[in-house]
Order: sequence, then structure tokens, then C-alpha cells
Amino acid sequence: MVNDDDVRGSRRTGVWFIGARGSVATTATIGALALARGGAPLTGLVTELEEVARAGLPPLDGLVIGGHDLAGSMVERAQELARTGVVPPGVVADVLDDLAVVDARVRPGAEGVADRATADSLEHDLRSFRDEHQLDHVVVVDVSSTEPPSPEAARLGTLDELDRALDDGAAALPPSSLYAYAAFRADCPFVEFTPSTGPLVPALEELAKARHLPWAGRDGKTGETLVKSALAPMFAMRALAVRSWSAFNILGGGDGRTLADPAAAASKTATKAMALEAILGYPVDGPVRIDHVADMGDWKTAWDHVSFEGFLGTRMRMQVTWEGCDSALAAPLVIDLARLVARAHEAGHSGPVAALGFFFKEPLGGTTHALADQWQALTRWCAELDGVA
Amino acid sequence: MVNDDDVRGSRRTGVWFIGARGSVATTATIGALALARGGAPLTGLVTELEEVARAGLPPLDGLVIGGHDLAGSMVERAQELARTGVVPPGVVADVLDDLAVVDARVRPGAEGVADRATADSLEHDLRSFRDEHQLDHVVVVDVSSTEPPSPEAARLGTLDELDRALDDGAAALPPSSLYAYAAFRADCPFVEFTPSTGPLVPALEELAKARHLPWAGRDGKTGETLVKSALAPMFAMRALAVRSWSAFNILGGGDGRTLADPAAAASKTATKAMALEAILGYPVDGPVRIDHVADMGDWKTAWDHVSFEGFLGTRMRMQVTWEGCDSALAAPLVIDLARLVARAHEAGHSGPVAALGFFFKEPLGGTTHALADQWQALTRWCAELDGVA
Amino acid sequence: MVNDDDVRGSRRTGVWFIGARGSVATTATIGALALARGGAPLTGLVTELEEVARAGLPPLDGLVIGGHDLAGSMVERAQELARTGVVPPGVVADVLDDLAVVDARVRPGAEGVADRATADSLEHDLRSFRDEHQLDHVVVVDVSSTEPPSPEAARLGTLDELDRALDDGAAALPPSSLYAYAAFRADCPFVEFTPSTGPLVPALEELAKARHLPWAGRDGKTGETLVKSALAPMFAMRALAVRSWSAFNILGGGDGRTLADPAAAASKTATKAMALEAILGYPVDGPVRIDHVADMGDWKTAWDHVSFEGFLGTRMRMQVTWEGCDSALAAPLVIDLARLVARAHEAGHSGPVAALGFFFKEPLGGTTHALADQWQALTRWCAELDGVA
Amino acid sequence: MVNDDDVRGSRRTGVWFIGARGSVATTATIGALALARGGAPLTGLVTELEEVARAGLPPLDGLVIGGHDLAGSMVERAQELARTGVVPPGVVADVLDDLAVVDARVRPGAEGVADRATADSLEHDLRSFRDEHQLDHVVVVDVSSTEPPSPEAARLGTLDELDRALDDGAAALPPSSLYAYAAFRADCPFVEFTPSTGPLVPALEELAKARHLPWAGRDGKTGETLVKSALAPMFAMRALAVRSWSAFNILGGGDGRTLADPAAAASKTATKAMALEAILGYPVDGPVRIDHVADMGDWKTAWDHVSFEGFLGTRMRMQVTWEGCDSALAAPLVIDLARLVARAHEAGHSGPVAALGFFFKEPLGGTTHALADQWQALTRWCAELDGVA
Repeated sequence: MVNDDDVRGSRRTGVWFIGARGSVATTATIGALALARGGAPLTGLVTELEEVARAGLPPLDGLVIGGHDLAGSMVERAQELARTGVVPPGVVADVLDDLAVVDARVRPGAEGVADRATADSLEHDLRSFRDEHQLDHVVVVDVSSTEPPSPEAARLGTLDELDRALDDGAAALPPSSLYAYAAFRADCPFVEFTPSTGPLVPALEELAKARHLPWAGRDGKTGETLVKSALAPMFAMRALAVRSWSAFNILGGGDGRTLADPAAAASKTATKAMALEAILGYPVDGPVRIDHVADMGDWKTAWDHVSFEGFLGTRMRMQVTWEGCDSALAAPLVIDLARLVARAHEAGHSGPVAALGFFFKEPLGGTTHALADQWQALTRWCAELDGVA
Repeated sequence: MVNDDDVRGSRRTGVWFIGARGSVATTATIGALALARGGAPLTGLVTELEEVARAGLPPLDGLVIGGHDLAGSMVERAQELARTGVVPPGVVADVLDDLAVVDARVRPGAEGVADRATADSLEHDLRSFRDEHQLDHVVVVDVSSTEPPSPEAARLGTLDELDRALDDGAAALPPSSLYAYAAFRADCPFVEFTPSTGPLVPALEELAKARHLPWAGRDGKTGETLVKSALAPMFAMRALAVRSWSAFNILGGGDGRTLADPAAAASKTATKAMALEAILGYPVDGPVRIDHVADMGDWKTAWDHVSFEGFLGTRMRMQVTWEGCDSALAAPLVIDLARLVARAHEAGHSGPVAALGFFFKEPLGGTTHALADQWQALTRWCAELDGVA
Repeated sequence: MVNDDDVRGSRRTGVWFIGARGSVATTATIGALALARGGAPLTGLVTELEEVARAGLPPLDGLVIGGHDLAGSMVERAQELARTGVVPPGVVADVLDDLAVVDARVRPGAEGVADRATADSLEHDLRSFRDEHQLDHVVVVDVSSTEPPSPEAARLGTLDELDRALDDGAAALPPSSLYAYAAFRADCPFVEFTPSTGPLVPALEELAKARHLPWAGRDGKTGETLVKSALAPMFAMRALAVRSWSAFNILGGGDGRTLADPAAAASKTATKAMALEAILGYPVDGPVRIDHVADMGDWKTAWDHVSFEGFLGTRMRMQVTWEGCDSALAAPLVIDLARLVARAHEAGHSGPVAALGFFFKEPLGGTTHALADQWQALTRWCAELDGVA
Repeated sequence: MVNDDDVRGSRRTGVWFIGARGSVATTATIGALALARGGAPLTGLVTELEEVARAGLPPLDGLVIGGHDLAGSMVERAQELARTGVVPPGVVADVLDDLAVVDARVRPGAEGVADRATADSLEHDLRSFRDEHQLDHVVVVDVSSTEPPSPEAARLGTLDELDRALDDGAAALPPSSLYAYAAFRADCPFVEFTPSTGPLVPALEELAKARHLPWAGRDGKTGETLVKSALAPMFAMRALAVRSWSAFNILGGGDGRTLADPAAAASKTATKAMALEAILGYPVDGPVRIDHVADMGDWKTAWDHVSFEGFLGTRMRMQVTWEGCDSALAAPLVIDLARLVARAHEAGHSGPVAALGFFFKEPLGGTTHALADQWQALTRWCAELDGVA
């Protein structure tokens, strides 16, 4: 995969990362390259489970990767990931040359103002990528740094208003949304894997609908919230009353550094806090915190403390400690989502794909946060796609 | 409820506990008495959740409780439960007089040999209880001490063989199975809430079928295994490979004392270990241990350590600590099961009720260990019962 | 003890609580009353350990308790403590009448401005208490709500300046320091058990010295910091390099509510963070957080995550969860400190008592944070006092 | 160090490992080689802390390593240690040639019967090693697999009896003790780093005394017991009553495999259980378990659950999880002990060196298990040695 000559599948799918030289995109790219060469384990890939694979997804060895980023190098990032145990050193060594080829495709991307010229340039990058590699679909996946909440973007009510603001060089659009705008203009589906605003702007939803494009989001459910969405339904099904659920996360790395900024962290803790009340049906006391501890690197450790009430009001407690590697958890999901959204595009779906709520902390278009229910919705959708051209 | 004059529901359901003066039965009885008086919270009662209640279950204030036990006193046990925080002292004080009335109904029960005379005497106790209180159904629930595995009982292949062995005074039947025999002879459904053999003997299954009796089991899923059955599917759905899952339990009380005996513990750790392989589809390394620590009383603390592999083989870990009160967790389930099995009896079901697998470590007649799937099976069954006379 | 007629010891020692109707003072008073009656266990009392008792301390049955508080009732507080499991209900019931007698001695205390009139009134309360009960010593112990840091108080360089400011009705003195001023004017030693400023003002230190009064502080070391001060030396002695130590605390109750205010929490997290660098000799990364979770009540749960480096740089981890009852941990220390400071007063010590650093997060006058070293300093001091009149 | 030509110190000290190709000895050797080359961090080396170094210890670059083992290869072991994250791959690569030189010195060692011929052969290996490398001292360090308890060895009351039994070819001596015999006969001090019997046989103690040889043991305190010996004194000093302390360990690797054998595990759990009662002064309930989980490799994870009583009997809990790499924790201690015991030999000490109790689960000759007290004893001894020729 990735390198042109290697593409063997009949369907060629582009994956375009916003934040291509970050840990998640680099880990995903290393993995995609290793999987295309064969020999790498399929662990962590939901799309390789029978119930999901039956949807008729684009083949792993038909993926071609590119992306936007402002600086850095995928090769250097890969070496760092090998050093800190995120990816096995041997795997990195095997794909380093291929990775350099992908890195050469990375374009500078957008910084600062959201104006027409920048939007056009981003769109042009995507169209060139598709043309050059003769891709059937290009899925844009945002894995860049989390932005602060952007309430003013929600006020861009119509596509007309947005277009006018861009022409005037003053659209109140955060970068993630400008990327989504360019993606939709280039007829590319979009995956918002961070808690940033991305396509969640009325004007952009209008644009996606007009272009018949599917999109998915937001904020990949990789660790503590994943565990919550598996455990909270247990309390509900057993009629146990959760009295408080306190959640503390420590992590280093780039993501940790970004989240040390309270404004950016606000986006994250907001999506993290949603699942509980949605699943239990009542508000639950307790903080949700993310703290930057440089020493932890890409390894995120979370401690959850749950206090609950049982029969006749007797109090009990559960604690969970999760020691996960954020990039290793996110990378396969990013590949999964690119394949699933490409398939949705092919099958003619448009708007937010509710069936992909399984992958997100805030399942846009979806109706449930409980993991098993999300799994059912996903696999039912995949069964429906089975056989659809 | 419980006391004759208080029974207000049109349907009167007997609950007959094997091990009536133990912690679980006493807690359940205190709760049932408090709930019948009104004012007690419905926390922990699965049968009061809308999706289950719709099955048309016998009312809480129509329950009448009795049971077998060899020694002890429900009143003294209740005072101990109040002292150790299992049940609020105020609740115990409120129902103490009613509890003494229930205690007076407890009959000595079976010890030692499984012969015809003992079986007849147990059966007679059950028939008298039903007649005296004019009960529509009597559900027998085994919450007595865990027995060692009883492989020879499995060899009692036919009811005929069993009957002959009892007549000869030499049936290789553990007490739990003798109680099941007596229950079935008295036309009472049976719930095996412990890991003991109970009705899981070919000859007894034949008897239940012949009498059109439903039964359910075995080993109530109250704590660590409950958590496992909520968490293990998460790893399966996300294609994460569990490499080891080590589970350690410490508890005191009568149950802890019983399980300090390696033979009895073998029954328990066997049912505890089932869920994982059943859910994940491959064997998982790691010990399952139960240790008696007198100091813990009825409070069971479990530590689970899970080591798993993610993308490209990266190793991660999860730990769970569960601090639960065993009797407070089991008691509402016992009431739930009595109501559900009485309803199954009424609706004409016979044999093991697969839809009740939700409640058990070893879901007899059931096909899944994953909690969310069990919940679906249960609520689907309840929906089907909705409206059935 | 406490009630006049009961005082049997030859030495009569007054304990005057600032915040007398809070959880800590009420728990300490219940305990002191129960201990004086006999039959209560001596658990948690450091002063009853042989190595400390040898200092010749005032007898438990010679303690007389009073205090300042703005509102509330010790009796109601005691009932709440019994209900939430902080103190056994039976013990509370036994001493409730005596507790009402103590409660009647509580005076309104100071609120708002630090002026001469308020200072005089507080001093008068203390003198009246001593006279009325014919006490040999009165130790004032601050267990009131934590104040925000008070940097301007540090600028009150001399007693003269302070006296003039009070006369002018405008001293920049937080309440805790005004209480310390009144205590010293009334010839009472002072214990600052919270992270508030208290006697830690140059002008007040001058006053204590002039009056030959000992004082001790600050911020009782009851839970997570206690554990830290036992564990951190292990890393130092074994040449293991601590790379990060993250500490999260959740608690409810009045203390939790106070600490939900970031200004007050700043005082607390400052003293909590001191021990680590002091013991290890180098700065350690990682947050120290206290979050208010109403549901936890007086029960504080802390999670500490330590990442450290061993031989050749290999990384390892340790986690600690502490589930303690704050008031139950603090109450015996408060009694211990009253006895020890009374003894220091009797033996003619003045200024901060360095040997009492064992009890505090910020050991004023002390030189070490390591628990075992503090224990040595304490017991050595007690040995020296042995025999001193 | 190690390789003859490299020895630059004026004092040349031999370290002879029993179990030279195991994880601990190989990690220690890698470290010693890397430290001698310079550039490796001194983390984990107690002997490099100022308070200990002052004893005037043999220099790190004067160590020459050899040993006994039955099979295997240090080079292969080193590669495995690099692969599993016990030792940084770069460090292993740097010293691999030197390691092969050490490996070539490893002699086959003893298996099976304890007779005169075997003892003579072991003794001869040690003498040859010393002569060939012109060593001032050779310290024999047992880091081989844990043996089952060997009660019959204790009955070898006198050296005469032992010598006669060896001549008869029938001494009831486990291998560790035969190695100790050979070491003492070759005038080498001995360190028993495992829970095996080693020199703890009356006849061997007699022999060590006669030859003026120091020895130390037993069972290196590297993980959970280390934590216990730092934490348990905290409860004692604060008069908190520990009601139960349950300890569970999971580990893989060779040590885990050995300890999966209940007989060998009995030796280990016996030494692990000692500290608690010794420190607290009363017996404490609760299991101590070691379970083999192959998946964990050299990484040992321990969970400790402590239930304790505070003021007026209020119950509280503490939990500790320790995730350590056994070999990385043990290796620097083994180097420390070799240096310290060589120094004791030089200074004329004989018999068990009580001051080294700091390093052991069962501090032979020592009187305390509390870590801080052991640290004091160690550093006081080092101060005394300061200046002694």
C-alpha cells in the first residue's frame, strides 16, 4: 500500500491526515505500511473482525496516505515512537523508506486566518493527491492538536454566510473547520477524530449534504471513556445507583502538552463527560481531569473512582486504572474509520454516519453511548452494506 | 408482604430459601419486608426496571418467605448485618418483628445421607408451606454454603436410577441436589444461586421436565465476574488481544470461610473462570483465586489485572478493584429470580430458563456470557411475556 | 474529663478548639469523652505509645474542652458523624449528654475585621475558660476551615506594627492569625492544624517568644502526605530516581467544600507538595489536586501514581490508593498535640516545637519531612522530657 | 572492569555468581560492564550514595565477574532482556563482546548429590578464578533458582558431622548450601540473595567463623516486601491497628516458573511474610501469594490490600500496586552486596553481617525489618568503616 507501485487492490483509497506528522497519524501510517507488506498482526483493527469486514471495505493494501502538517518529520516521529515503546523498533526499521515517501507528500497546511485563498489552497492539495494517485476516494481525517471550543463557529448558520465571510477574509472558523470546508469542496468525506469543531458547523453540514458526502465524529474513544461506556451500562442494567464517578488522566507527549492548556482541555473534558449521564439517565457527580505529566510520554494512565449504591442504599466502590498508549490505541481506529467512511461514500451515504458512534466519545448523529449498543448499530449497518454495490 | 395478613396482591408467591438464616437470605428477607412496608428504595432490583417489570411479575407485597436451615437465627443474623454495615440499622429495627415471624417458619432441613425419608420430609415442608399460606407458586432458592464439585451425581442418568438409589438409602446426591429433588416433587421451580450441583443432574432435569417446572442457575453473578462480563466484550469488540487476566478475591464472612476449603473453592473458581474464554473465544492465562480474610466480613474486595496487546503488538494494562458487599449485591437478585421464575412457571415454561443467564456466572441453558447480550435476551423474553396470561 | 466534676488527674489541661463544632473537633471531643469514661480503644493516639507517653504528658482524664465557632451544634454534628460511619453510633450515644455540656462552652468567635475589640474579646474568652475550670494550661488548636494564603500578613514584621494596626482597626491579619494573637496574649500555646497562616507571622512569632510560649504547625499530616513521607525515603535510600509523582484527592464534607474554592485549595496543595522535593532532594514533576465530591462525605480517597527509574534507566511504576476518614485520622492527632504542647509549655519551651514535625505536612521549625526521621526526633525529645519537672 | 586488561583500580574484586546465566546475574553483569566503561547512570546503586560510599568500597571498575551455571548463555539471555525491556537494547549492544568473555568463565556447577568430589570441584573453580585474575577478594553470590525449604540441613549441627557426611557421599545438603561450603573452603565470603538455605546451616556457620569469613542474606528485598517495610512502620508510629494485609504477586520469567512450584514458593512466601509481624509486633491476617503468569515476563506486579483501624475503631483501607522489573531491581543490589561484603572481608568481619539487613527480606543476624531503621544501621556501619584499613 501507500507507495504507488505497491497498490494491488482494485480499489484505491486515499487517507489524508490533518496533523500527518503527529503520533497518531505516524503510528497509523507505520501500521498501514507494515500491514500492506504482510506479516504484521491485525490486532486492534475493528475492520478486520468478521462482523465488520463483511461490509465490503476497501482493502488494506489499497490505501495511499498523505496529509497536511505545519512542521516536523514522520521519520523522526517514527524513531521517537520506537524509542518510547509505542511501536516495535523492528517494525519501524522495516518501513522507514516507505515512510519517507509518504512524508514527502505532506503539504504545509493552514495556519492563522480562514480566508478564501487558504481554503482554495487546501482544496487544491486534496484534488492533486487524488489525481496523482488515481484514487477512488480520499478520506480526510483530522488528528491534529485539540482546539479550544469555538462557539462562534456555530453561528455560521448557512453556507452562503460562510462563503461570504471567507471572501471577506474574516470567517470565524477554527482550522479544523476550514479543513472540513476544503475537504467537502474537494468531494472528500471527513472524519473528526479530535474534540475540535471540524464539520460540526451548520454551514458545513449544509455543504456536506449538498455534495452527498458522509462524515463522522467526534473525538476518538480510545481509553478511559471506552471503559466507561462498557462499564456504566452494567450499573444501569443492575439498577445500581451511581453516586459519583471521578476520573483523572495523566499523560505526556504532544497531546498532553496541548491539553495542559485549560482552553483546549475544556473541549476534551466536555466530550469525556457526556457518556455517563447519557448512559445512566441521571447526572453524576465527580470531576473529569486531564493533567500533563511530561514524564508519561504517549502513555496515558487514568484512574476512575466510582461510588455506587446497592440494595437498601448500601454503599460500594469500584476503581479502574487504565495504562494505555494513546497513539497505539487511536491508530487502528483511524484506519478503520477511513475504510468505513470510504465505504459509506461509495454506498451513497451522506451526512453524519450514526452507525460509527462506536468509535467516538461524542457520537454525532448517534443516539447511544453504551458500547454494546453501539457495536450492534455498527454491525447491523455493516450487514446492510454487505452486498450493496 | 411475608406476614399473611399483609399480603395484598392478588397473586401470592412463596420464596423458600435453602440456607434461610445465612447472610444472603436474611438480607433478601429484610429487604422484601421493608419494600412491602413501603419507603425502602428499589435500588438493585432488576425486576423494577421498566424493561423487566413489563413481564407482569408477581408483586413485591405478595411474597411470603420461608426456608430450610440447620441452625442459627434470622434475627441474630440481621443484627450482625446491621452492625457490619451490610444493611442500614434503621431498616433492620423496623422489620425485626416481622423477621421473627419468618424465622419461625424455617424448618431444619437435610444433613448427611440422601435417602427417601429425608427427601419426603423436605417435600412435605414445601407442601405445608404452600397450603398454609395459600400460595400460587413456591420458588425454592438455594443460597446455602457452596459444596465441593460432585462429579458422581452427574452419573445418575435417569430418574428411575435416582429413585431406586434413594429407596436404597444410598443416592450419591449432594444436599443441594436432594433439595432440588424435593422441590420438583413438590411442584416447585428451583433457583441454584450457588455453584453447587443443585438440579444439574440428568435425573433431576428429567424430573423437572416431567413436572413442567422451570429452573435457573447457577452461581449468582454479583461482583468480579459481573465486571468481567461487562469488560471482556470491550476487548473483543475492539480486536484487542487479552494476554493474561489475573483475578484475586478476598472476603470474610460465612462464604469466605466456606471457600477457604479448597474443595468448595474449586466449585467457585470454576464458574468464575468460564466467562472469559466464552466471551473472547480463546483461552486466557492467569489465576483466579478466592482467599478467606476474616477481617473483611461480608465485604469482598477483588483485584483484576489485565494485560492486553494493541496495534502492532504494543502491550497495555488495565486494573480493576471492586469493593462490594456480597450479600447486598446478591439479595435483590434473589428476589428478582424468585419473581421471574414464578412468572416462568405461571407462563408454562419448563427446564432451564436460558433468558435468566444475565444473573449467573454459569448461565445454564444460555449461550452467552457477555452482559449486554444477556440483558438483551432477558428483556426480549420479558417483552414476550408481556400480555401472556 | 471535660466535665468539671469528672476531672480526676492532678493536672488539668484545657483544649480550646477554633472551629469547635466542625468534624475534627467534634470527633476529638467525642473521643476524649469516651476515653475519659474508659472502655474506648486507644487506637490512633500516638501519645499512648510507650516511646511518647514517657514524656510525662497530661492525663487523658484531665482534659477540659471548649472552643470558638460561628454557628452549628456539636450534638448535631456528632449525630451526623455517627450516621456516616466516622464514629460508632454507640460511642456517640454514650457521650451525648457530656457533649452538650462542652457545646455550651463554645463562644461565637471572630468574623470579619481584625481590630482591637475583637482581639480583646477572644482573649477574654480564653482567660475566662482557664479561670472557670482552674486549668493549669490551655492549648488553643485551630481546626477551622482552611483560609487562602495571606502573603500580606508576612509583612507585619514587628509586634509594634501589629499592635498599632489593630488599634487603628485595620490589621491585615487573617482570622487564624488573630486567634493566635489572642491565644498568645492570654498565655496559651497554639497549634495550627490547618494550612492557614495562624502564628506564622513575624510579629506573632515575636509575641510568642516574649511570652515564653511554644506553638506547633502546620497542616496535620493525616493521609496521602503521610503515606508520601513514608514512601518517598524508600526511593531515596534505594537510589531509585522518581520521575513523576501525581496525586489526586477526592473528598466531600465541609473540608471538601472549602477546598473546592481554588484560593483555599492553594494553601493545601502547597503544603502537600512540599514533602517530596524535601525528601528526594530534587524537584519532581506531577500534579497535586484536591477535588470536592459531595458524595464522599468525610471519606477522602487519594490516588498516587509514581513513575520511577531503576538500574540502567529501566522505568517502573507504583500506585497507592488511600481510603481514609479524614476526621477519624485527624482527631487523635489533635488530642496528641494538645497534650504534647501543654507538656512543652510546662517544661519551658518556647517558639515552634521542631520535634512535633512528625504531625505536620509543613513541619515548622523542623528540618525533615521523612516520617521515620521525624519519629526519631519526636521520641528523642520525649525521652529528654522524661523526668523534667 | 571484568576483562583483565581493563581493571584499573588498585583493588581487584571477584564476583562469582551461582546462576550466572539467569536474569539477575546477566543484568548485573551487563550493568557492571556498562558502568566500568563509563556513561551508564548510577541509578539503583545504593553503594554510590554518599552515606554508603564513604565506607571505602572496592571500585566498580575493579570488579571481575565469573560464575557457575548448568546451561544457557549470558549473550542469549542479554538479548532476551533487551527484547523485553529489562535492559536498554543500546546498552546490551555496547557490552556484548565483553559479556561473551565473562560467559566463557562460567563453569558447569553442581547438580544432584552433595559429595566430597563435587565440593572439591566447586572449590577448585573458585581458587582458579582468584588465581588467574589475581583477585584480592572473591565474593560468591547465589542468584540461582529458589529451592524448597530444607529442614534436614538445619540438623547438620557440626562441621565434623557435615564433613563426614560429604565423605560418605550422602550429606543432606541442598545445592545452595554445597556452594556455600565450597565458597567458605576457598576463603570466599558468601551472599545468599535467594530464600534458599545457603549458609544458614549450623555446620556452615561454624566453618565461616573458623575461616573468619563474613556472609549475608537472605532473599533480596526488591519489591513488594520493600514497600511493606517502608509502609508498615507508618502504621506502628501512628498507633493505627492493621487488621489484615493481603498480598498478591504475579510474575512470569524463570523466577515465576520456579515459584509456580508450591514447594519453592513456600520458601519465598515464608520470607515475604516475616516483615509485617516483626514490624508491627502482632500477627496480621491475610494471604501472601505468588502466581506464575507467563505473559508478565520479568515484570512483577503486586497488589497489597491493607485494612486498618483508626480512632474509636473506624475502619479504613490502603491499596498499593507495584509494577516492577524484578531483575532490574535486584541487579544493582547484587553489585552493592558484593562490594559491601568484600569490604567487610577486608575489614576483618566474620559471620552474618547484621548491618546488611537493609537488603534482605529475612535479615540474618539483624534485628529489625523496618526499612528506615535498617538504613540507619547500614549507614552507621559504613561510617564506622570509613578510615578503617
